[in-house]
Parts: sequence; C-alpha cells; structure tokens
Amino acid sequence: MTDPRDDITAERRRELLDAALAFADLCAETTASIVRSGFVVSKKADASLVTTADVETERSFRKLVEERFPEMGVLGEELGEHNKGADFRWIIDPIDGTAEFARNLPWYGCIIGLHYKGLPLLGVIDHQGMGIRSHAAYGLGAFANGERLTIDDCGPGEAGAEARIGLPSLAGFLKPADSRAVFNAVVDVYPNFRTFQTCYAHTLTATGGLDAAMEWETPLWDLAATQILIEEAGGSFRYVNNSDVTGEKHFYSAVFGRPALVERMSEIMEDAL
Amino acid sequence: MTDPRDDITAERRRELLDAALAFADLCAETTASIVRSGFVVSKKADASLVTTADVETERSFRKLVEERFPEMGVLGEELGEHNKGADFRWIIDPIDGTAEFARNLPWYGCIIGLHYKGLPLLGVIDHQGMGIRSHAAYGLGAFANGERLTIDDCGPGEAGAEARIGLPSLAGFLKPADSRAVFNAVVDVYPNFRTFQTCYAHTLTATGGLDAAMEWETPLWDLAATQILIEEAGGSFRYVNNSDVTGEKHFYSAVFGRPALVERMSEIMEDAL
Repeated sequence: MTDPRDDITAERRRELLDAALAFADLCAETTASIVRSGFVVSKKADASLVTTADVETERSFRKLVEERFPEMGVLGEELGEHNKGADFRWIIDPIDGTAEFARNLPWYGCIIGLHYKGLPLLGVIDHQGMGIRSHAAYGLGAFANGERLTIDDCGPGEAGAEARIGLPSLAGFLKPADSRAVFNAVVDVYPNFRTFQTCYAHTLTATGGLDAAMEWETPLWDLAATQILIEEAGGSFRYVNNSDVTGEKHFYSAVFGRPALVERMSEIMEDAL
Repeated sequence: MTDPRDDITAERRRELLDAALAFADLCAETTASIVRSGFVVSKKADASLVTTADVETERSFRKLVEERFPEMGVLGEELGEHNKGADFRWIIDPIDGTAEFARNLPWYGCIIGLHYKGLPLLGVIDHQGMGIRSHAAYGLGAFANGERLTIDDCGPGEAGAEARIGLPSLAGFLKPADSRAVFNAVVDVYPNFRTFQTCYAHTLTATGGLDAAMEWETPLWDLAATQILIEEAGGSFRYVNNSDVTGEKHFYSAVFGRPALVERMSEIMEDAL
C-alpha cells in the first residue's frame, strides 16, 4: 500500500516545513506582544478558558495561511474550519494549556500541524515560555532546537513500573464521560507518572524527559503535531478507544513514545474501558 | 507563648539571610560547573538517584557554613549531620529532584533552610534551570526574584474541585508504606492536580501557580525551606500524619498553601489513613 504522503516531493515538504516554522515565529510574536500589552481571560461554553492571546494568535496564523495557501484548509481551536475537505489541512491550537498560560506557567505551547489526506505531513510544537521548539516532517526527521531527536525502544526492564510516563490529571478523564477506570489502570501499572495538561508532555516524550505519554478524549488540534514528531523520531504513536485520525470525531485518545511502552499502555487502556 | 525566633534580632536575621543567599549562589555555580564538565549518575541504597553534582554541591555548601558559622549544625541529604543538637541548624538538599535533573529537566531545585531551636528561621529555594529563586526569613517576608509574595485565602468556591493542587505521583505514596489510599482520597476531591516530584511545587504554591501542595513521607531536607516561605507569604503550612518538625522522624508529611484548602486537604489526608 502506498502512502499518499509519498506523492509530495521532499523538496515540497521542506518548503511547507519552512512555511510552518515561519508561521510559528509569527504566532510566538503575536502571543508575546499580547502578553506584554495585557490579555483578558474568559470562559468558553465548555467551561475551558480562552484568552485574547489565543484568539489573536490564531487569527494571525489563519491570515498567513489564507494569503500563502488559499486552496488549503484550516482548522483551529478558536475560530473553526475553513475550506473543509481540502487535501491539505492546517491545524492549529494557538495556546495549548491556556489554564497554565493564564497563571503565567511557562509550559503552554503553540501547536501547528499540516495533514495531507488525513495523514500528518509536518508538525511544530513551540514552547516560547520554555525556549524549546520541536518540529518534524514526513521523511525529514524530528528536531528540537536544531538537534535531531531519537526515541529508542525500551531495553530489558525499561517498560515496567519504573518507566516515567505523562498523562492528564484525573480531571482530564472525567469529561466527556467518566473514564477514571482508565486513569486508575494506567497509574496502577506506571505509578511514576507526571501530569502536564499541555503538549509539553509531547515534547518531553520526543526529547527523552518522558518514556511515553497519553492523551484522553482530546480535540484533534491537541494532537495535530504529535504523531509526526514521535514517528519521525523513531517512536510509536497509536490511537486508542476507536479514535481515528481520518474520521471526524470530536475527541481522540492516543498513546505515544517508546514502542514497547506504547504497546503495553494501549492494551491497559483498552482493557480498562 | 513566646516564639524563640523573636530572640534573634531582625538585623541578625537579615545577615543570616544574606549569607544563605550567598551560599545559594555558590551552590548554583558548583552545580552548573559540574553540569558543564559532565556528571555521573548512580543509585543509592534506597534506589533513589544521586549524581556527582549532588555530592559536590553539598560539599561546597558545608565548607562555607563550617568556615563562617563553625558553631552551627548542618544536615544534608548526601553527607549526614554535623554538630547535632546545635541551636542553629542549616539543612540542605543540594539537588531536589535528582531524577529530573539527571534527565535534563529544569525544575529541580536547591533547597537551603536554617532552623533555630527546631523552628524555620529562613529558607531559599533556587531553581537555576528555571531562572526562579524564592526566599523568606522570619518576619521579613517572602520573595521570588525580588518580588514580594502573597498567598491569599480562597474566595467563595475556590477550595472546591476546581482548585489546582500539587502532589507527588502515586509512586511517592508507595514507600515507605503503601499509602495509596491517601493519594486516591486527595485526587478524588481535587482531580485537577499536577505532579512534580520536586520542590518546584513548593515554589509554585508560593508564587500562585498552584493553590496548595502536599508532600508525603519525605525527608526533612525536602521541606527545609517551605514552611517559612509559605507562612511569610501569608499561607498555611501544616504537618500531617503525626509529623513534627521538632522531632527526629525520618519522614514528614505536610500540606501547604491557601489556608482553607490546607485545612480541607489535611482533613482528607488524616481521614484516609
């Protein structure tokens, strides 16, 4: 079976990646300028937080995409979908971790992904508060601050209880349905976990701070850059709970990181449902 | 009842604080120079990690204290107790969060406390990897990077399930005894928790990133600076599980932060035992 992404030449993928990195620069500038001038925090209909920085950053991004790639689609957390059904689909979460951002905690991130026919072509996760940007593109490798990333599989004994995994806090398993059984099953086997509530857990998985991480019933934009980042570094990415990137679900669950851990964690998650 | 710390003049407390801040500078330099030249990670008898950076940083600190305050006691994580029973007792954890430090994660911290007759007189928590240093001294206020810290009590509805608390991961509740009932009871009421495994949770509680935090059965040096930092900022600090700072237990459990939350969390913890 051929991968449709092979139809995009490496040169074109490099061009698109350069565009994504330039877009990430602009998003970072927009967010920083709004932080300097002061931002307003409010609650959305689902009780999650949004700030004027989220909205303005996404608006800047969409303007750039619509100018440079008017034929492509854009899906964003704050401002909906444009050109639905286009082969190329930019996906943005302008500030992932708005609750952390609103408390001046630095591990929020700007997520930018470009998918082609439902498959991830490239991704950028920028943590300007931490000074870390990671990126990857199909066939071109994964990098953080210019350094090539490699996720090794687990050696003997490394997929056991000592492994350090990232997962949402229990609050992340109580909506949209009560899935605390999944949380309990995972932490029972992997008690040495860390909670993040932002894509910083994804970056840490790609850069070696965590052995694996998972997200539970989260919107597509939260995972828009993660699969390509992890896979290009040599790790595994797996959707669980009948999630499917090519479908049109509202929420997606996934586990990613060192391959043996991903396999074991996905079994634990599926069994707990 | 008079507080023995009132016998130490404010001028003397300021001098001691200046000394502690100078010691923290030296500890940060020692750690940084060992990071630059490369450090070795090994396992201690209790299976926790230690690096050459931990040992060298503590050695530098003890040398300074013994030169400048030869009559005072020193208790450190890596090198034991000196002048046991002295009225003044310096306490250091040179690198709190060695496991994070060994993975190049920036939220480890150097903890320095000075206790007088068993009560905390001053404390410094330095996160050089994050560029944040907090400090406090009895009667002189609490500060982070020069800014005065204030912990407000909870307003209406702020001590409920939405509160953001910090606690160790489940692994921190499995030793020395299995206390997972405490973990479960706390996260059941406060599902929006974050895990840190380092004193960064203490700094975040003092600086507003967390509403409250707790430690479970941890050595005294992990809490050496926390009580004075929290109390001088206007928050509450409470030992639970029969811990007592003036005693000679091996492990201490405590909860600290916004007063109404500390009260409720300490009840939950005691009830779960």
